[in-house]
Amino acid sequence: METVKAILFDTFGTVVDWRGSVAREAEKLARAKGLGSVDGDAFARAWRAGYQPGMEAVRSGQRPWTSIDVIHRERLDAIVSEFGFGGLTDDERNDLNMAWHRLDPWSDALPGLRRLHRSYILGPLSNGSTQLLINIAKRVGLPWDVIGSSDAFRSFKPQDEMYLGAVSMLGMEPDQVMMAAAHNDDLKHAQSHGMRTAFICRPYEYGVDQVRDLEATEDWDFVVDGIDELADRLVP
Amino acid sequence: METVKAILFDTFGTVVDWRGSVAREAEKLARAKGLGSVDGDAFARAWRAGYQPGMEAVRSGQRPWTSIDVIHRERLDAIVSEFGFGGLTDDERNDLNMAWHRLDPWSDALPGLRRLHRSYILGPLSNGSTQLLINIAKRVGLPWDVIGSSDAFRSFKPQDEMYLGAVSMLGMEPDQVMMAAAHNDDLKHAQSHGMRTAFICRPYEYGVDQVRDLEATEDWDFVVDGIDELADRLVP
Repeated sequence: METVKAILFDTFGTVVDWRGSVAREAEKLARAKGLGSVDGDAFARAWRAGYQPGMEAVRSGQRPWTSIDVIHRERLDAIVSEFGFGGLTDDERNDLNMAWHRLDPWSDALPGLRRLHRSYILGPLSNGSTQLLINIAKRVGLPWDVIGSSDAFRSFKPQDEMYLGAVSMLGMEPDQVMMAAAHNDDLKHAQSHGMRTAFICRPYEYGVDQVRDLEATEDWDFVVDGIDELADRLVP
Repeated sequence: METVKAILFDTFGTVVDWRGSVAREAEKLARAKGLGSVDGDAFARAWRAGYQPGMEAVRSGQRPWTSIDVIHRERLDAIVSEFGFGGLTDDERNDLNMAWHRLDPWSDALPGLRRLHRSYILGPLSNGSTQLLINIAKRVGLPWDVIGSSDAFRSFKPQDEMYLGAVSMLGMEPDQVMMAAAHNDDLKHAQSHGMRTAFICRPYEYGVDQVRDLEATEDWDFVVDGIDELADRLVP
């Protein structure tokens, strides 16, 4: 592992708890608007269910390049009525859409990243937009050295352009860059391009909807239960 | 100025003192190698004199995309003998070339950037490579939220792709982004794309070679003597 100089982190699910964060935003909004109780967890999972299909339309070429912020907003419009948010104005929907820019990190993420930051170049490699990734980082102090976003490479993982673009952007060889993710599929693609791999186990990412990534399915370079544990292994 | 959400900084000369930093590296190396005294300042200026011609060959299409690190290295090879460094090995030349990754900030830069960072998204918009810009930032703690490099957009300022690419990467309108630079020409191009402008006066950047940018030549949105003064104006 001595060759590794940079570690790139998947963000949604790996660094931040999108489900809990979006659920809290939805419940807070429902209270503020006097809408009664809303199942924030179900709302977050329903919103997220539009994520892969939304990106797939772009990846397949069926739709021209579209920012994840637009994909998030379209899915929001599709589910608002079901969750009692149908009366929200356009501005209120825009603000709720920004919940994805205000996601909270898992409790081990910030302590682990700060330790790793002393010895490695760190950044997200995420299907989030640049602005989303900057806003998440700035709000809680994630110590990124560089931002690897979908709009930087105008593609979505697991498209080759994301991994190759990130390695090229860093001016490094693939084996100098490690992908850290809670998703086996993400690591499989990173590995296919010669990158190193770290599996961060997040068995609660999807809550009751979680059917995969409950454990590492391959012999990744590192398999850990949190980013703090990755720091334990790499910067002892 | 209330629309401005992000400030992008030219780096060489505006944030860091390339001349003093490279001069110190050269003099240190000459001492370590027992080469006698070397005129570090003249060496730095001679090295820098290859910068614009090296980029121009790429901008004009005469040469395919080439990283600034390669352009720096080629210029180094062209001047080593003149300054008594002709006996350096390939590895030693590579290390000396990394002097451009170890440039020190002007004394006002870090305090000013830290204050601006509380209220604005900050990043370099520089002809440096991503790795160079990361290494400079990480070594001294420049609080960048994002990296705008020449290899991210595969072009060199003042090409349109740099300014348009940076604004697009941020997902913002041009007037939400301010270019801060010690070079009137850089600001002229930024302004032509609708960006806001801040002139940071650096009359000692080139030392005895400095013939321009001794003062603001146009009525830029801000004209200041340092990044700390820009922070005084923007985050009082």
